[in-house]
Amino acid sequence: MSRVAVVGVGMTKFGRHLDRSLGSLAAEAVGLALRDAGLEAADIDAVVFSNSFDGLLSGQESIRGEIALDGLGLAGKELVNVENACASGSSAIHIARSFVAAGTARRVLVVGAEKLFHEDRARSFAALRSATDVTAEVEGGEGRSVFMDHYARKARDHVAAHGTTLEQFATVAVKNSANGSRNPYAQHQAVHTVDAVIASRPVTDPLTLYMCSPISDGAAAIVLSADAGSDGDHPQLIGTAVATGDGVADPTPIAAGRVFAMAGIAPADVDFAEVHDATAPSEILAIEDLGLAARGGAAALTMAGETAVGGELPINPSGGLLARGHPIGATGVAQVVEAVWQLRGEADGRQVAGAEIGMTQNAGGVLRDDVAVAAVTLLRR
Amino acid sequence: MSRVAVVGVGMTKFGRHLDRSLGSLAAEAVGLALRDAGLEAADIDAVVFSNSFDGLLSGQESIRGEIALDGLGLAGKELVNVENACASGSSAIHIARSFVAAGTARRVLVVGAEKLFHEDRARSFAALRSATDVTAEVEGGEGRSVFMDHYARKARDHVAAHGTTLEQFATVAVKNSANGSRNPYAQHQAVHTVDAVIASRPVTDPLTLYMCSPISDGAAAIVLSADAGSDGDHPQLIGTAVATGDGVADPTPIAAGRVFAMAGIAPADVDFAEVHDATAPSEILAIEDLGLAARGGAAALTMAGETAVGGELPINPSGGLLARGHPIGATGVAQVVEAVWQLRGEADGRQVAGAEIGMTQNAGGVLRDDVAVAAVTLLRR
Repeated sequence: MSRVAVVGVGMTKFGRHLDRSLGSLAAEAVGLALRDAGLEAADIDAVVFSNSFDGLLSGQESIRGEIALDGLGLAGKELVNVENACASGSSAIHIARSFVAAGTARRVLVVGAEKLFHEDRARSFAALRSATDVTAEVEGGEGRSVFMDHYARKARDHVAAHGTTLEQFATVAVKNSANGSRNPYAQHQAVHTVDAVIASRPVTDPLTLYMCSPISDGAAAIVLSADAGSDGDHPQLIGTAVATGDGVADPTPIAAGRVFAMAGIAPADVDFAEVHDATAPSEILAIEDLGLAARGGAAALTMAGETAVGGELPINPSGGLLARGHPIGATGVAQVVEAVWQLRGEADGRQVAGAEIGMTQNAGGVLRDDVAVAAVTLLRR
Repeated sequence: MSRVAVVGVGMTKFGRHLDRSLGSLAAEAVGLALRDAGLEAADIDAVVFSNSFDGLLSGQESIRGEIALDGLGLAGKELVNVENACASGSSAIHIARSFVAAGTARRVLVVGAEKLFHEDRARSFAALRSATDVTAEVEGGEGRSVFMDHYARKARDHVAAHGTTLEQFATVAVKNSANGSRNPYAQHQAVHTVDAVIASRPVTDPLTLYMCSPISDGAAAIVLSADAGSDGDHPQLIGTAVATGDGVADPTPIAAGRVFAMAGIAPADVDFAEVHDATAPSEILAIEDLGLAARGGAAALTMAGETAVGGELPINPSGGLLARGHPIGATGVAQVVEAVWQLRGEADGRQVAGAEIGMTQNAGGVLRDDVAVAAVTLLRR
């Protein structure tokens, strides 16, 4: 595979930005990524724009990137708009890597941006519902995302199969809150205790509020380039994959197998990972789906502190979706932004020591009984 | 550039399909393209799905491809959803070509599908409006697409600059109606006369009803492969490009310049083209924007019969958007389906004799005063 380097990254603080436009958030992330790369808009050949819900929340469809990025000096560039529910950002990176590897473009800007907060909270939940089969019957879901019902069922299945406990799930949330408190870009900065997580408002058994990722606004951007310097200069994107689900099982293992084959490395080579902890139990499942722990083994790793920043296999050093927040179309891009900061040794206060190989996992939508699409990336320092 | 062959094509008849689902239309096109390629779903590595308005018209966002293609044996494949307004289909092909050229996938299925008809006709027009800047003020547009106001203004500019006449515009519509009458997949089969086109219902000066592409439903699919046989076996996709607009001028010339450079050929080498005749004047403008005629020269070519199937430079042998119809996300894919049929010599009744090089041009959305995005492809027999 051609070498593809990540030469610049940037993101907004994630949070509640009701007073800002999608374009304003996107412009901030793009400006930061270009400055970080030492490039100007004119140096970019192609743009891949990721957003999931602007169509339903603001009425802007079809040319969301053209509208959001108008005035940034990107006219005349290749530009495509990409969606894959919560995995939109990683899907955009997958396309961008192919643009560079194919020689279609030398430098590609990937932008993920989302405004999910709405004055009418029900509109936010309705938008999320549109990332499932809208013709399917769903139970409950009033006042919360239908995804939480899906993730709760998956959590209960894990409890039944492996005896996972509420304390173990809560420990994931505690660890990610601690990581988030050291990440200035995180939406939530408060550090929780196991007791506080368990005592927080029940959402859907076994999930409590602090085990669920929040509604978020935000944007993230990266610049991929074929003009890679030496390995030490810029982290390399050594694998990307997207796998669609069959409605029965999570496609993450399929996507993971594909990136490991593409990069020619094994799960044991991974030093840290940013995974799709839409809920605290999701992180346990993701670690196992990626092959980073045996089935039923992730909870013990978590309880032993191995998935904390000082452990053997730090997971979500950024705070993950739980603490950094989850602006849908931006999340997969933000995961790679964090991975790049870690690989460069620039993650002050939450730095994984000696990180050489980082992995990201991003999951999206619901197709019948499981995740509709999973996207995985691998990066090397 | 790596060789990328189009090894299978298929499409539904375009038209009014209120009783069929997006998935049913997509499945028909996919089945035809796979059969044409002599492949099964299991042989496909990746899918690029193009749709523009299902989110607004049915509420299905984010994972439109996963939902529409569910049950077709494509689970586990790479799948991304792509939008670029009316240029979505060609944008999807641009991504798919990069997937093959990058080695990300050996065989890629591109599917464009759209259901734009709605029981409530105002909903169809509202959806089209979402492919413009929805925060911008627009005049008129009641009972018709805002795009027709845009295209009418461009037509009036052409009249002012080059003295183009109503009869010349009408002659484009007449020629395309004749081509459509010989295309069994076309939505409109009736052959019009110049008088009938001019006498049809006024839409926006100078456009009359028969000069405007219709509301349409339909799907089209192609299979790209790195496993190309000899040149004679499968047409090659020798260039694809997408260019975003600056809000001032049509980006088609930028995209055209890029594909000619990529393919290493010149406008004079093009034997026929499928262009984005959203209106009859749009065809005149597209011919000039692609460099296939000098500025102000396309009308004379049209009047001389040179853009008819028997002429020197046949344009829209399929009948174009005017006659074949314009199911937004499917149009760019259908243009390439027609180009492949022409290059294989399989376009009974409307065959361009000895066609070696075909071009397609697809334009989408409105950004301030002009087209938001243009996408162009080149194919060689």
